[in-house]
Amino acid sequence: MNAYLISIGDELLIGQTVNTNVSFLGNLLSDNNIDIIKSTVIGDDHQAILDEFNLAFNSAELIICTGGLGPTHDDITRNAVVEYFKTELINNEEVLEDVKAFVTKRGRELKKNHTDQALVPKIATAIRNENGTAPGIWIEKENKILVVMPGVPYEMKAMMNNYVIPTLLEKIGTPKEFIKKVTLQTTGLPESILAERLGDINELLNGAKLAFLPNQYGVKLRITVKSNDEEIANNQLLEIEQKIRSKVGRYIFGKGEITLEEVVGRLLKERDLRIAVAESCTGGGLANRITNINGSSNYFERGIVTYSNAAKVELLKVEEDVLIDKGAVSAEVAMQMAEGIKSTSGADIGISLTGIMGPTGAVTNKPVGTVFIGYCDDKVCTSKRFQFGDDRVLNKNRATQAALDMIRKSLLGIAFEE
Amino acid sequence: MNAYLISIGDELLIGQTVNTNVSFLGNLLSDNNIDIIKSTVIGDDHQAILDEFNLAFNSAELIICTGGLGPTHDDITRNAVVEYFKTELINNEEVLEDVKAFVTKRGRELKKNHTDQALVPKIATAIRNENGTAPGIWIEKENKILVVMPGVPYEMKAMMNNYVIPTLLEKIGTPKEFIKKVTLQTTGLPESILAERLGDINELLNGAKLAFLPNQYGVKLRITVKSNDEEIANNQLLEIEQKIRSKVGRYIFGKGEITLEEVVGRLLKERDLRIAVAESCTGGGLANRITNINGSSNYFERGIVTYSNAAKVELLKVEEDVLIDKGAVSAEVAMQMAEGIKSTSGADIGISLTGIMGPTGAVTNKPVGTVFIGYCDDKVCTSKRFQFGDDRVLNKNRATQAALDMIRKSLLGIAFEE
Repeated sequence: MNAYLISIGDELLIGQTVNTNVSFLGNLLSDNNIDIIKSTVIGDDHQAILDEFNLAFNSAELIICTGGLGPTHDDITRNAVVEYFKTELINNEEVLEDVKAFVTKRGRELKKNHTDQALVPKIATAIRNENGTAPGIWIEKENKILVVMPGVPYEMKAMMNNYVIPTLLEKIGTPKEFIKKVTLQTTGLPESILAERLGDINELLNGAKLAFLPNQYGVKLRITVKSNDEEIANNQLLEIEQKIRSKVGRYIFGKGEITLEEVVGRLLKERDLRIAVAESCTGGGLANRITNINGSSNYFERGIVTYSNAAKVELLKVEEDVLIDKGAVSAEVAMQMAEGIKSTSGADIGISLTGIMGPTGAVTNKPVGTVFIGYCDDKVCTSKRFQFGDDRVLNKNRATQAALDMIRKSLLGIAFEE
Repeated sequence: MNAYLISIGDELLIGQTVNTNVSFLGNLLSDNNIDIIKSTVIGDDHQAILDEFNLAFNSAELIICTGGLGPTHDDITRNAVVEYFKTELINNEEVLEDVKAFVTKRGRELKKNHTDQALVPKIATAIRNENGTAPGIWIEKENKILVVMPGVPYEMKAMMNNYVIPTLLEKIGTPKEFIKKVTLQTTGLPESILAERLGDINELLNGAKLAFLPNQYGVKLRITVKSNDEEIANNQLLEIEQKIRSKVGRYIFGKGEITLEEVVGRLLKERDLRIAVAESCTGGGLANRITNINGSSNYFERGIVTYSNAAKVELLKVEEDVLIDKGAVSAEVAMQMAEGIKSTSGADIGISLTGIMGPTGAVTNKPVGTVFIGYCDDKVCTSKRFQFGDDRVLNKNRATQAALDMIRKSLLGIAFEE
């Protein structure tokens, strides 16, 4: 079965609201082996809705439409449905009871715009709404299905989970084709190099699909396989994952939607190690990411943000001579900062960052984007140079990612350098 | 001018990526008086791209397309453009230089998939990419404009701001109707109370429009007025802004897209004051936001992130008795932390945060979301209690916003309490 999604609402077109409904629907439908062929957004406009219904019915078996079912003047989807199917609105007693119960429970007075919500197109099945007053609409015609739901995310989500998906699965029966997916999260290699390392992509995939999804922290690799046999699909997925791991395994920090700070947090917790952080250029960004994880107080000892040389000397025991000779942005200072935060805090691991985030501050041989990351534990004390880009906030984020990845590599015994 | 947006990428259809690009584009285009009539998402499929180009060219004057321009096999948009316009790819020397510079600067080796990025459709103008290797594409044909950009948000955003919008505005020339907008950024009041304080909305607006745009940091108020006369529009806008300021002025921290950390940074710089930060619950989040601003080294002295009581005593001179008597999450400890960071750092202002961010850690009378913020300068030393919600990361962000707002209020002589 394939699907066409329609989102209705001016607020989506002018960017006032981010359309998270379609990502929810995309995930849920594809997890249930329904292919989404297209997703569109149109405004609160009667003719635009009719035109879009035409396009959708000409290209897909299932049309899922959200938005414009509320009680105010700009909610016009239901009328468009009535006109499109040349039907009429009739009162639905079951929905009316739902609406009355909902309004009463919230201690509000029942108004006409509430009871009007119980008007449902004659040819439709009403989808009950636990979380609001507008029912959903389910219409089947000429082997096609139209589902219309409110745009309020939690109302729509409950309808999808409780009614739409179960009803669709019943109609579809046992799937003819199994679609299996896995996402591998990488960091430390740009998309182009990653692609090169993977070598001949057709040989690797043998008919499966691989998507490269880059973001500021790295590249996600999403593998998708399809097969009539569920076991074959699972095996093929595993085989491709293993091949990819054999080629770029050291850059893969996790599977699925996990973040690197979660991965590092788990490793530190497992090993019962405590970490302390000394930041210059990232200004608290690394400590902030580490402490975004619930339970981080178990392994995060402290963080110190030292912008000035004086603070580096006073709080991190960096030697003044070294600061003067090598400069605050140098391998030596990074190492001394990591050593200093480790020894003064008594943590097991000290990590440090010093660099030039831009847009100003570049010096000879150290352009904007130069960062040194220092790492010290009981066995090793080292530092590594990185070169990021021109954007200050992006540079901060990338530098914190690189620091987290150094911790991950060290804890897993992966060398920092190849 | 009207616009049709096309987003290309399987990851958008299957819901792996939330499409924030279209909300960015929707905002930016409508701010520049360009109406978005439709926005669609299609997969990485050659025929689907061609079909969508057809639909778009039949309905809009401007088509903006994002995604599928990268260097890997699943990036197929450029070839679809070549086929659609029956043109060919030619090497663009300027882009090649950009690509070489970009790759070299990052210390990587120049590969074929890099240099291939310099191939641009013959009939196109290349849009230079400061933040990546894939150039954008600008094609004009039969009074219509097609713009194709990479889907990576920061690459696309820079192209829109630096090239696409200025070029479009030049083409559009003087508009017949003047649409004037202003956004006032508020923090510290929920949407419903803000609306209540503004009173009779029709009287306030007199035909103009007002949108409430809530986010985790506060509520943006966007006022829109239209008139054939530019001066009348400007005057009406100013009048409404003044009325709003007279009612909720103390909650308005800025105009347009400015952030609170920028506002606070400017105030500190103007007054030649230095600040130091002591964080427990926000784990470096406040220091991170302050240092996101270029030039923050002029006023940010240092930050200390103390999760443990021991670190609070050692680094911030918090009294052990007070920690035991009142608890780490208390008004007294917040005040001592602020006092401690101010005195040990020698900064003019000390600010501190201690609280329970969740999802665990609640104690009697201090549920998840309880935060105390301490503030000390040469004249005053105080603390204030806040109650946020259940989500850890949201709580961290809201607490840093509240702390920045306390600094703003103090510097402007606005009382913390009403």
